[in-house]
Amino acid sequence: MEVGFLGLGIMGKAMSMNLLKHGFKVTVWNRTLSKCDELVEHGASVCESPALVIKKCKYTIAMLSDPCAALSVVFDKDGVLEQICEGKGYIDMSTVDAETSLKINEAITGKGGRFVEGPVSGSKKPAEDGQLIILAAGDKALFEESLPAFDVLGKKSFYLGQVGNGAKMKLIVNMIMGSMMNAFSEGLVLADKSGLSSDTLLDILDLGAMTNPMFKGKGPSMNKSSYPPAFPLKHQQKDMRLALALGDENAVSMPVAAAANEAFKKARSLGLGDLDFSAVIEAVKFSRE
Amino acid sequence: MEVGFLGLGIMGKAMSMNLLKHGFKVTVWNRTLSKCDELVEHGASVCESPALVIKKCKYTIAMLSDPCAALSVVFDKDGVLEQICEGKGYIDMSTVDAETSLKINEAITGKGGRFVEGPVSGSKKPAEDGQLIILAAGDKALFEESLPAFDVLGKKSFYLGQVGNGAKMKLIVNMIMGSMMNAFSEGLVLADKSGLSSDTLLDILDLGAMTNPMFKGKGPSMNKSSYPPAFPLKHQQKDMRLALALGDENAVSMPVAAAANEAFKKARSLGLGDLDFSAVIEAVKFSRE
Amino acid sequence: MEVGFLGLGIMGKAMSMNLLKHGFKVTVWNRTLSKCDELVEHGASVCESPALVIKKCKYTIAMLSDPCAALSVVFDKDGVLEQICEGKGYIDMSTVDAETSLKINEAITGKGGRFVEGPVSGSKKPAEDGQLIILAAGDKALFEESLPAFDVLGKKSFYLGQVGNGAKMKLIVNMIMGSMMNAFSEGLVLADKSGLSSDTLLDILDLGAMTNPMFKGKGPSMNKSSYPPAFPLKHQQKDMRLALALGDENAVSMPVAAAANEAFKKARSLGLGDLDFSAVIEAVKFSRE
Amino acid sequence: MEVGFLGLGIMGKAMSMNLLKHGFKVTVWNRTLSKCDELVEHGASVCESPALVIKKCKYTIAMLSDPCAALSVVFDKDGVLEQICEGKGYIDMSTVDAETSLKINEAITGKGGRFVEGPVSGSKKPAEDGQLIILAAGDKALFEESLPAFDVLGKKSFYLGQVGNGAKMKLIVNMIMGSMMNAFSEGLVLADKSGLSSDTLLDILDLGAMTNPMFKGKGPSMNKSSYPPAFPLKHQQKDMRLALALGDENAVSMPVAAAANEAFKKARSLGLGDLDFSAVIEAVKFSRE
Repeated sequence: MEVGFLGLGIMGKAMSMNLLKHGFKVTVWNRTLSKCDELVEHGASVCESPALVIKKCKYTIAMLSDPCAALSVVFDKDGVLEQICEGKGYIDMSTVDAETSLKINEAITGKGGRFVEGPVSGSKKPAEDGQLIILAAGDKALFEESLPAFDVLGKKSFYLGQVGNGAKMKLIVNMIMGSMMNAFSEGLVLADKSGLSSDTLLDILDLGAMTNPMFKGKGPSMNKSSYPPAFPLKHQQKDMRLALALGDENAVSMPVAAAANEAFKKARSLGLGDLDFSAVIEAVKFSRE
Repeated sequence: MEVGFLGLGIMGKAMSMNLLKHGFKVTVWNRTLSKCDELVEHGASVCESPALVIKKCKYTIAMLSDPCAALSVVFDKDGVLEQICEGKGYIDMSTVDAETSLKINEAITGKGGRFVEGPVSGSKKPAEDGQLIILAAGDKALFEESLPAFDVLGKKSFYLGQVGNGAKMKLIVNMIMGSMMNAFSEGLVLADKSGLSSDTLLDILDLGAMTNPMFKGKGPSMNKSSYPPAFPLKHQQKDMRLALALGDENAVSMPVAAAANEAFKKARSLGLGDLDFSAVIEAVKFSRE
Repeated sequence: MEVGFLGLGIMGKAMSMNLLKHGFKVTVWNRTLSKCDELVEHGASVCESPALVIKKCKYTIAMLSDPCAALSVVFDKDGVLEQICEGKGYIDMSTVDAETSLKINEAITGKGGRFVEGPVSGSKKPAEDGQLIILAAGDKALFEESLPAFDVLGKKSFYLGQVGNGAKMKLIVNMIMGSMMNAFSEGLVLADKSGLSSDTLLDILDLGAMTNPMFKGKGPSMNKSSYPPAFPLKHQQKDMRLALALGDENAVSMPVAAAANEAFKKARSLGLGDLDFSAVIEAVKFSRE
Repeated sequence: MEVGFLGLGIMGKAMSMNLLKHGFKVTVWNRTLSKCDELVEHGASVCESPALVIKKCKYTIAMLSDPCAALSVVFDKDGVLEQICEGKGYIDMSTVDAETSLKINEAITGKGGRFVEGPVSGSKKPAEDGQLIILAAGDKALFEESLPAFDVLGKKSFYLGQVGNGAKMKLIVNMIMGSMMNAFSEGLVLADKSGLSSDTLLDILDLGAMTNPMFKGKGPSMNKSSYPPAFPLKHQQKDMRLALALGDENAVSMPVAAAANEAFKKARSLGLGDLDFSAVIEAVKFSRE
């Protein structure tokens, strides 16, 4: 199967590499073209614009950093819209708000193309291991045709109905994650400042009803103040903001998510936006005593 | 081994039953003495006051509902203090604040007795299954002598040092739990109000890095608005309050826990205090639209 | 002086009436044209579209309910943009976000027109009394030419520099107001539930360093659960949201405003969005006990 | 009229000085006795213990820093309790929780003495100017006999009923104040970080419905990062905590006060506890960008 792939950030690179490894013919594009080199070494082709990728491939997957980039790749000069047409499918796996997804859907289908949004749950490691969870919505037939690729990229794909639902579900999952990370951070700092061992707290949590891969994976490095960016804090905060906006639309009051969002903002103001989102613990820790 | 057991609430009953099943000779007391009947059917003896239990047994375990009850059982007429003396050990497994533990420790040791605090992580089900996590602190020798009982009651026992540390660790664990439950509740309600399936959200969470027994265990019943009390909401809120007070002492700002605590308070004001703490989702759900 | 006036909601009606009373020749337009009748009785002319008002008047003031309405009046068919041209000034006094203001500014000036944004601080009563505070920004010359009108509408006009600054300042003022209203509400409810008189609390506050017209004006009716809409709660919540978004842009963490915003959302979900923003006290009060 | 006065901190010193200036015969005591010197220069007598003051004076006023000090002065060796008896009145004007007041009341009345709690609203300046607001509760007759002193110390005295009500009302007033100060701080910081003048924001606020002496008094110094302690931040945070505890007792959820409390805690962790409570703005401001 031949696919185009737009966007080679942390996630996109791991995903397109997986497709190559599983025998897909992949044509890549990235804003900074030099980032394509490693993929080319593994057999990928390169095009110089999103439009050229779409022209070449029947199916094109996009994995971009934010709603702005997702829109730009579609609507700007040399963008997706210039070549999308009947018979072609565009699958945007970026994490964006529903409004952005709907705007892209309208433009693509307006040109006769088909559209699936397919944001994922999971960051760098699951992307590398093909263990993402794919939250797809939109054109049902295109979803089904995309399953061979989805099966390589993820361990499970959900079809959630109309365009926008994938975006919304993704935001909700990430909102829960952001609040949990804050709950965890506050607990670790409180243990430490109360004269208890935050490593022992990890052991205790690991034995109880709250044990989960995220605490196990990130806890030990957080206790060492190490935050290699699997999922950058600034993106986590963006998702909290978008999830709160979704709550705003639907009149759902979410005080815990709102408090967590402000903690992520404080972490951004401390210059931690490019570190892993677990660096929010630094905003909790920070003191002058 | 012979042990006394004070307090036969949800937790205490399950724990003393486990001790009986594993061949311990158990002498029980409960404020409402009739609650002892079921234990007696399984072979327990009964005493009419805490003092009489202490008099009879070398080791006595207590499992009481709150700091007030824990203090009352020790200091009131016919209480523990009247009979505690050299050679006797008192193990209080109630969830109380460190200050309460320290007060009891001082009184017990002042009479020559030995004291271990041993609050547990885990509610009704783990108590029944002997799968509690025991957070012990205080007299090291008594801790070691208590291990045969702890091994029946729990799957792992931690020795955390000086009296107060068990209480503190317990509060921190429960604080994380309370914040996580709010994060989870907000997510489930947001999914539902946004036109998504909150059952699908459970499936998605279950596949990701946040999967944990608490979400898996409580999620489906929460989606059915069913909250059989494993850990009563009013006790969860009390623990949040005590954990925040610990943060206050140590100048740790914990905005997410504080927001979660206010949500639990709102749930109490909605008359949900005696239901399971997962009923906090009702405070998030509540609307007139 | 002749001015156009677009939008005759609570605020717009009071403002255009003031202009009429002070001898201005006013040409009005409102989406529901029948709302113009009362103004006509007082001497106003009517046009059937924003475009026609602009065509007729050198200066046109707009007072619309939200960013969406503000954009629609400019960009839609028969909108401001169709007739704006060199020599004409457009003064938008709606409360909108800076982005909306910038978009309108760009469009107006692109056609050779001049633009001032002039959101106001103050609701129904100050609007009626000509006691608004005007937070203007944009074309300095137009600002100065508008002063005769501003002097009728408000008690003080500030010139704040580039377009967007008026919007931002307004949001910040309203954010403080929304948080204060929540602080006040929580205090009144706490007094009442603690067995104290919330009327006595008003007397005490009135004597202290926190005494302010808002508490004095709204407190007595809040204690009687009466919320005639001077500033609708849903608009207050919108402003909180936009102010928080401004904080997001600038990495300012504002946990108190975020908590207040969620309380306003809860109030919206209780069906209080069209009442005065002081109705947020109902979200604090609400209980089943 | 002759009165005893216990406690010569910022508040107590100003208050006892006022009594002296108005012709009262005042006998003072302070833990650090040297602090009495200035009062002695103005005509006060000194006793070496609270007990001796009580012995000497029919009426004794206390103004102590916290519940712990208030209890210690009554119950410790050489304390109030040793000399209180029928015919003597004890008026505690410290800010304490209701429980502390009730404990003191019980002890005093148990010895035949009479008790009024009379916490005040207002800090250093109003104390110096005799412009405090007195929130009295307890023995009605003693309250009335105390009015000559209260009239010197304050501009208005409220009688609020049973002991505890004064404490509760005071906490509620201070809770509103603490939340308002946070609302104000967030607004000032947001203005500044958004490229607006926080001094202009003060001017705008001063003209609107929120204008109040606290904003006017503290705003200009906050904009200069100056926080001379009129009311120390750590005391404000203590009052927030006690007010939240009162809410806890009565199942009142107060998310805004809770968020404000955590901001004050963060400020304490930044070493600002001894500065004025307006220094909480530093916790909002703090960033590394």
